[in-house]
Parts: sequence; C-alpha cells; structure tokens
Amino acid sequence: MTSADSVFRVGLLGHGTVGGAFAELLPEQAGRIEVLTGLRPSLSGVLTRSRGSFDEILAGSDLIVELIGGIEPARSYVLAAMNAGRHVVTANKQLLSQHGEELWDVARRRGVQLRFEGAVAGVVPVIRVLQESLAGARIDRVHGIVNGTTNFILSEMARTGATFADALSEAQRLGYAEADPSEDVDGRDAAAKMAILARLAFDTPVSLQQVRYEGIEQIKPDDLEYARELGLGLKLIGTAERIGGGLSVRVHPAFLYPGHPLASVNGPFNAVTVESASITEITMSGPGAGGPQTASAVLGDVISAMIPPASTPPTMNALSFVEDVVSAFYLHMEVADQPGVLAAVARVLAQEGVSVKSVVQKGLGEQARLVMVVHPVLESRFAAAMVKIAALPVLRTPPRAIRVIEEEFG
Amino acid sequence: MTSADSVFRVGLLGHGTVGGAFAELLPEQAGRIEVLTGLRPSLSGVLTRSRGSFDEILAGSDLIVELIGGIEPARSYVLAAMNAGRHVVTANKQLLSQHGEELWDVARRRGVQLRFEGAVAGVVPVIRVLQESLAGARIDRVHGIVNGTTNFILSEMARTGATFADALSEAQRLGYAEADPSEDVDGRDAAAKMAILARLAFDTPVSLQQVRYEGIEQIKPDDLEYARELGLGLKLIGTAERIGGGLSVRVHPAFLYPGHPLASVNGPFNAVTVESASITEITMSGPGAGGPQTASAVLGDVISAMIPPASTPPTMNALSFVEDVVSAFYLHMEVADQPGVLAAVARVLAQEGVSVKSVVQKGLGEQARLVMVVHPVLESRFAAAMVKIAALPVLRTPPRAIRVIEEEFG
Repeated sequence: MTSADSVFRVGLLGHGTVGGAFAELLPEQAGRIEVLTGLRPSLSGVLTRSRGSFDEILAGSDLIVELIGGIEPARSYVLAAMNAGRHVVTANKQLLSQHGEELWDVARRRGVQLRFEGAVAGVVPVIRVLQESLAGARIDRVHGIVNGTTNFILSEMARTGATFADALSEAQRLGYAEADPSEDVDGRDAAAKMAILARLAFDTPVSLQQVRYEGIEQIKPDDLEYARELGLGLKLIGTAERIGGGLSVRVHPAFLYPGHPLASVNGPFNAVTVESASITEITMSGPGAGGPQTASAVLGDVISAMIPPASTPPTMNALSFVEDVVSAFYLHMEVADQPGVLAAVARVLAQEGVSVKSVVQKGLGEQARLVMVVHPVLESRFAAAMVKIAALPVLRTPPRAIRVIEEEFG
Repeated sequence: MTSADSVFRVGLLGHGTVGGAFAELLPEQAGRIEVLTGLRPSLSGVLTRSRGSFDEILAGSDLIVELIGGIEPARSYVLAAMNAGRHVVTANKQLLSQHGEELWDVARRRGVQLRFEGAVAGVVPVIRVLQESLAGARIDRVHGIVNGTTNFILSEMARTGATFADALSEAQRLGYAEADPSEDVDGRDAAAKMAILARLAFDTPVSLQQVRYEGIEQIKPDDLEYARELGLGLKLIGTAERIGGGLSVRVHPAFLYPGHPLASVNGPFNAVTVESASITEITMSGPGAGGPQTASAVLGDVISAMIPPASTPPTMNALSFVEDVVSAFYLHMEVADQPGVLAAVARVLAQEGVSVKSVVQKGLGEQARLVMVVHPVLESRFAAAMVKIAALPVLRTPPRAIRVIEEEFG
C-alpha cells in the first residue's frame, strides 16, 4: 500500500557505469528501504548527455544524485539543486576537492544534506566513519591506498616482474584503468580524494591545489625486485597528518614493511587507516571502484538522507600547511664497479645528516648497483643529498629514491 | 555563550573502565560537538555501585549512556529510560544478544534511539556500517575476529610457542584478559557479538542461544607449529552467513591462509569482513576493546543521537537456522609408528566422503604424528569420520580437528 505521500523521489544525473548500476539497484532495494525509512524511493528521472531536462527532473525530485563527474555542469546542477532545497548525493571527487567549501556552505545555509561517500574509496565507508563514528575523536593521521588503478598496477609489477607500461596495459584490458589513465597514474585522482579526507579529518579547508602528489610512472621492475629482498612492498600512499601545529597532505609511492595494515592490500582494492591517540587506529578496506560498488555507497547515502540531517560544519581552527616532512627512503643507484663508491655516497649522505639503515651491493661491471634504506630524515635534507649524489662521477645514471613507511601494525 | 536551552544532558550509568574513560572524553570534546550539532553535551549525573540515584539521573538527562554491563539492573534501566522518552547508548553485548528484540521494540514504539556501536568490536564501526552504509545491500556473510583476548592469546602462542595457559597468563598480566576469562576463552563473548551482527545483517531475530560456539582452550602449541608448516594462521572466527534460504551463526577456531583479510590481524585487534555480491567485501579492523577506544565508539553514538533519528526496523522475512555447514579441516593425529596407519585413516575418511588435500607424516616411535588438511565437507560427515578415527587402534590419543578457511583475499 503505497500512497503518493510515502514516495521519495530520486532524480539521477548521469547514466554511465555508476549511474547505470544505481538505476538498477534502487528499484531492487526499494521494498527494504521502505521498511527502514517509511518511504518508498523511486527514480523520478534520469538526465543523460542526450536526454532529459535538468529543470524538470529537479522540480519532480526530493533528492538529486549527481553522477556526471567533472566540474561543469555538475557544479551548477548541484548548486541549483541545493538552492532549491533538495538534498544532494554525489560521488564527484574532483568537484568536492576543488569547490567543496562553496558547496558545503550552500548546504548549511539551505539546511539540506550533501553526502558523498562514493567520492572516496568506493564502498569503503571512510567518509561516514570520519563524519559520524569519529565525530568525537581528535584525529592525528589518515593514511590510505585510495586509487585502485595504481594499486592494481603495482601489485601486478610485484607479482609478475612486468614493467609499468605492461602492467598498465593489463589493467586497461581488465577494466581497472581507463583509456586515458593519466589522472590515476600521476597521483592526481588520489590527491583529490586525500583533499576531501583531510578536510573532514582536520577541520581545515583543503583544496586539490594544496596537496603535493607524485605518481607511479617512474617505478621500475628493479625497484620492486630489490624491495622484495629487503622485505618491503610498494604502494601509492596518500597521507594527511598533523605535524606540529600544521597539516601535511600528500600522495607518493612508498615502501611498506609486511606488518603494516596497508601492506596486504593488493589488486584494485582500496584501504584507509585513521589514527587517533584515543582510538589507536581503524583500518577499512574494500573494492575502490566499480559500478555496483560505488552505486552501493551512493544508495547508502540516499537512505541516510531520507532519515537524518547530516552536515559538514564550518571550519573552526584551520591548520597551517607543512611542506617539509620527515621520511625514510629507499635509494637505488647504478654505480661504477670500483673501490670507494660506497664511501663517496656515504660521505654525501653524512654531510646532509642522512643516516644509513641498510645497504645491499649487487652486480658487476655494467650491472653494479648500490641499494640503501636510510633512516627517517627531513625530505629537504634528503633531496639535497640526492642532488649531490647525482653529481658524483661514480654514478652511471641518476639515483632513484622511494619513501619507506616504517611503522608496524598493532 | 551557552544558554540552558543549548545544553544536551547525558546521564551515565556505570563508572568502570569504559565509563571512566567516557566521563573524561565527553567534556574534552564538548566544544567540537557543539559546533557539529548546535548543542553542548554535558554530564548530568553518574550512577555507580555505591552512589547516585537512577531516577534522579533519568529525570535530569536527555540521553542515558548504559555502561554497567550484564543483564540486570542494566535491562531495567535501559527499558525505563526509553519508556520515559530518552535516547539510550549502550555497549552491553550480553543484554542486546539476549534481550535485543524486546529493547528494539520499545525503542520503535517510543520513537527513541537505541545505539550500541561499542557493544561489538570496540571502535571498529561495524554496527554503523551495517545499519547505515550497507542499509541498501543484500549481505551474504559477516566474518570476524570479535574477541581481542583470544586473538591476543593465539597470536602469542603462534609467536612464542607458549601453551594456552602461559599465553593466558601473559594476557592477564598485560590487561588483555580478565581475572575470570571464561566468557572470552570459551567463545561465549564472541557468540554474543555475532548474534548482534547477524540480527542487523540478515534482518532475522538472533539470540545468543542460537549461536553455536567453541573456544580456544583445547588449542595446543603443536597445532600452531604444524599450521606454520602448512602456511596457515589460527584465529577464533565468528561467522554469520546465508546458506540456501537459511542462516548459520557460529564461532570456532579456524585456520586461515595468509591471503585472507583476517589473517594479518594480530594481538588484541578485532576485524570484521562483510560480504555482499554487490559490494564484494568490506573489511574493518582496529582495537577491539580498551576504555578509551570503547568510550570513543560510545561518544560517536551520543553525537549521532543528538542529530538524527536511527531505528532498528522490525524483522520482515526471518531466515531459518542452518545447523550443518560445509567446512575444510585440519586433522592432527598421534599415531602408532607402523605401516598401514595412513591407509587405515584414509579408508575411514573415504567412507564418509571426506577428501584429503594434503598430508604430513612426522616423528618416530612415541612422537609419530599424522597431520592432514581435508577439502570442504559437511561438518556432520566429518564428525562421523572423527568418531571412527578415534576408535582406530593405531591412534595413541584422540584426534584433534580445527576448521580451515580457504578463501583468498581480493
């Protein structure tokens, strides 16, 4: 027995992979949702590139789901919907990481909900956990693997010894990478997601422009082979953390020891660890993308919007941004096969205060290599040492460095 | 500028480890919570064994936090609070697993919230994820390590080769086990938590009496040593899963292959994996207990109760309970050192349709042992084989069996 009054009208913008999956999932679960919320959700309209009118869909909807992606027209539609008093659910990480404050401000002023679980880490419920479960916790750090494409590529390189280019082709063949993979492999996609997580965790406005990022295009099979000898795994890691009274938000490849909670996350999976003195840490993992997975996160948001008000409060005490952070590094050098090479490198490192933790010397002649792991040091000091090492006549090619994350789990 | 109207009064029942931590945490975070919710939370009274009046605290509170534990007087207080129109937040797993339907029914009828994140897996947000993020998903299985005491003991036994008794003493020394650890080590604590998770995941009333459970008191250092040779780790695993049109809820020790998402959860940590065809799986892990951790989960619930209505809906389509499930097993036998032993055991297994996956024969004379892993089989068939094997004259002591979980991650 469904009267018109007990229907909740959902307008859908975008009908790609996630939009299509959402349009299937909503009617499947409508009965269950009616029991939960007292309202029966129903799709009131779908806007695609070629069909539908935004104004008509808006007029006939209680809530708008935005799955178009990109900045425009998504931004204009989301603003118009909220200004018309509608709740909005979106999975648009670029929009939130570049125009989040504008959107959250309108949501607060209009008293509507803006929910966005699907924008970060697919079905992994990190947005809800930060906004609700940990609303009363002081968070120290958020650490995560938030891009499934690069995690798949790095897993493949480690598993098969493939080059970056070959692993990328395999990812494209399996649908884990897009035809134009540049935003994934250069770290920009992960940076957008870390900007959103940092905003929520640290109550500080963070836009994509404030996130430093590096990608994985430069990773060589060699790096993964040496890493294995050192007992390390390689991941593209996003970090947002308090340092002193400031905040650092960054994305870069990093080695992890096997005990680290993110070390065992392989393939296209995502995982996020939230650390706080009062809770120690929570780690969440799951598929990072995919139509049905992200659609499920979007539907969870729609159901929540049907019940309670949620809000992203204005920021109170914005933290400053820290540019220079402390990190351990793996250092890979193709060197001349002659006495004194280790001494020359070690001298340069000592000059910059970089302390060596372990050294492996391998190969002869043209194959001679020196691989080190150094103790944590300010990145600016390490960068200075790298410049000096690159200038040493005993190096045959420029040195390569990758960060090492040293903490153990538990 | 806080007027009396903008204060949200929280009455606290119980001042043990978690209660004490909550009483410290609430005022620390009150300012932040006021920004989030528009209301400033304040402790209106604390009921301890020797001090305070429940009726007075109830009269002066907008919400009651119940951290007394056990059935009575906790049940009467929670019912009285809800009947008086107050929201309730509790961390009481025994109460919910034995009287949950009664409590949820009163909450629905009175239109108040009953929240209980702290009752299962400490700060790991599994209750919220099941009730909110996955409200629109059809869940197939919930798998978890939900008792930190036993996980610590098993981790210690594996790491040091200690006996159960010695590892338990160490857990007690470090505060990971209580003076009377029986509810933890016999599996009853984990069973109560699985009853609650199963209720939420499968929309079926589940009480503690319907959960089959085994503990870890029988685990021998030998089991862990052979397991290592087979590449397996041992955990106390809670499972709630759909089987056919029914439901199985159980707790028992089980071996895991290293790729399983729960295999790397060590020490006093908890972890829960939720599986659904539409989302693949989500795994969440973190500290499973501890005063500040559980207090943080309780505070997250208090904040949520200050904003939105949440409800546990009545069950619609209760599943039946399945008693006999399919499982792989590790089988450990102390045997006579003579020809034909393997043949005798293999014949019995074949009679019951149990298929052998791998065999290790070890030791001579008094030390001779036969260790097997068998393929998944109905537990009733395996149990029948065990009875026959125990009767074989070539066995020197009763055989020991432990389940093996075979799935790999990702």
